[in-house]
Amino acid sequence: MSTEQDDREQQLVDRVVASFEAAPDPRLKEVMQALTRHLHAFVREVRLTESEWQQAIGFLTATGHATDQRRQEFILLSDVLGISMQTVTVNNQAYADATEATVFGPFFVDGSPRIEHGGDISFGASGRPCWVEGSVTDTAGEPVAGARIEVWEADEDGFYDVQYGDDRTAARGHLFSDDAGHYRFWAIEPTPYPIPHDGPVGELLNATGRSPMRASHLHFMVEAPSLRTLVTHIFVRGDTLLDRDSVFGVRDSLVKDFQTQPPGTPTPDGRDLAGGAWSRVRFDIVLAPAP
Amino acid sequence: MSTEQDDREQQLVDRVVASFEAAPDPRLKEVMQALTRHLHAFVREVRLTESEWQQAIGFLTATGHATDQRRQEFILLSDVLGISMQTVTVNNQAYADATEATVFGPFFVDGSPRIEHGGDISFGASGRPCWVEGSVTDTAGEPVAGARIEVWEADEDGFYDVQYGDDRTAARGHLFSDDAGHYRFWAIEPTPYPIPHDGPVGELLNATGRSPMRASHLHFMVEAPSLRTLVTHIFVRGDTLLDRDSVFGVRDSLVKDFQTQPPGTPTPDGRDLAGGAWSRVRFDIVLAPAP
Repeated sequence: MSTEQDDREQQLVDRVVASFEAAPDPRLKEVMQALTRHLHAFVREVRLTESEWQQAIGFLTATGHATDQRRQEFILLSDVLGISMQTVTVNNQAYADATEATVFGPFFVDGSPRIEHGGDISFGASGRPCWVEGSVTDTAGEPVAGARIEVWEADEDGFYDVQYGDDRTAARGHLFSDDAGHYRFWAIEPTPYPIPHDGPVGELLNATGRSPMRASHLHFMVEAPSLRTLVTHIFVRGDTLLDRDSVFGVRDSLVKDFQTQPPGTPTPDGRDLAGGAWSRVRFDIVLAPAP
Repeated sequence: MSTEQDDREQQLVDRVVASFEAAPDPRLKEVMQALTRHLHAFVREVRLTESEWQQAIGFLTATGHATDQRRQEFILLSDVLGISMQTVTVNNQAYADATEATVFGPFFVDGSPRIEHGGDISFGASGRPCWVEGSVTDTAGEPVAGARIEVWEADEDGFYDVQYGDDRTAARGHLFSDDAGHYRFWAIEPTPYPIPHDGPVGELLNATGRSPMRASHLHFMVEAPSLRTLVTHIFVRGDTLLDRDSVFGVRDSLVKDFQTQPPGTPTPDGRDLAGGAWSRVRFDIVLAPAP
């Protein structure tokens, strides 16, 4: 590239950056100037053609038109580019052995039913029963009593209750850690499911040879006073999708052993599963101090 | 930042980049991998907060919903971030003394009226009459005969004909350079106008203390066989908006002297302007070879 050409491109970047210099909000100024620099660096690096620019405008327009009260295609786009997960990562700094965070996802619902220890969050959702137990501690190893533990997941067909189309609540609930910081409940073993892929983001995944599948997971949100709220999942060791989760939510430390129990194995709490198979998993949660 | 934190962030970038590795189209792979790297670099550099991420999703959603058949808010967004101009710059490499390109804008219409040399493109649009003349040559200085020269502009109230709301054609037309490569026509002296600023992009400009105004300009598109099509504007020297054009279309080489003629000054072609003021400008166009 000629010096003249390079100068023209750089001068343009400088002018756009300078245009934000008088922004009254210093943080907005910082964000817009950085966005300008990085977007221009992208266009210059790939030598974006005018027809590719048109395609990008068309893609964003279709993404906007696919978005309504029930469908958020821009969040899906952020998810499949790993931007959602990077935002989570940036905002949950590594701290001692605190449990790692992952994406929140679109399926959390406020006001889930409370269950007691040993209760069942499935509320009729289909799937193999799974006993989940563990502890909540701080990074000094002290038990955290009374931590609010929210859990939610898809059924064995890959659907969350909010996707059923009726008003049922299923496969979600919350409980509080006991005085020793322990918790235990029945859920269902997680199974894989695709993110919505019948829109522009699905087309992008298809065009780039990527799968819309999410690795099997069980969502957790854990809150306790003076500690950093943890939003995370646990994943199933052995799931073949672990290394190609469509939203990049997997962290090695979050992959857990879901141990399948042969039919007829006695359950931890004496629950009668009519001789059916079940599984169990342990997830010890470590909360960082509040930032 | 801890090494552990830095590793987590970089590993995530690497995983997203790797997810595009099997894309069947090598160019799409290159573009998506570069986009991933630059977007993640932005999020990491500014340490984007989760609430800022939510605002970004909300902004993109509003931009999508403001876009319809008649309004393209994503193009406006690209314009005010200088991305449209950078794309033009990247795709019109500096070549010898070839005239510089600038943004195409949304107001070009196919099928403009043809005028003869010395004809008037205003077709009744309001504004001070302006005589425009010049030559078309290649970069070897050879005259280009028969080049198609399209011109279009806003009227003195800042409106293009397509914004009038009726079907009138005004302030646009085309002509062909003569055998000596010369051209001359009547237009109106360009005046400033704002880009549409009643949507999310207008809110962004407002929040960052930027003006929606475009510097006064007259659009040109010049086509000739074997030569690179030139899409550009000429700007008015002395316009106070030259250094803050809202879409960054100004290049120093495109700023021209529009010389105001005192009322009663004879016109170049004897046209009777009833004693009114008029102006004149010269624009010599140099076309690069076709790429």
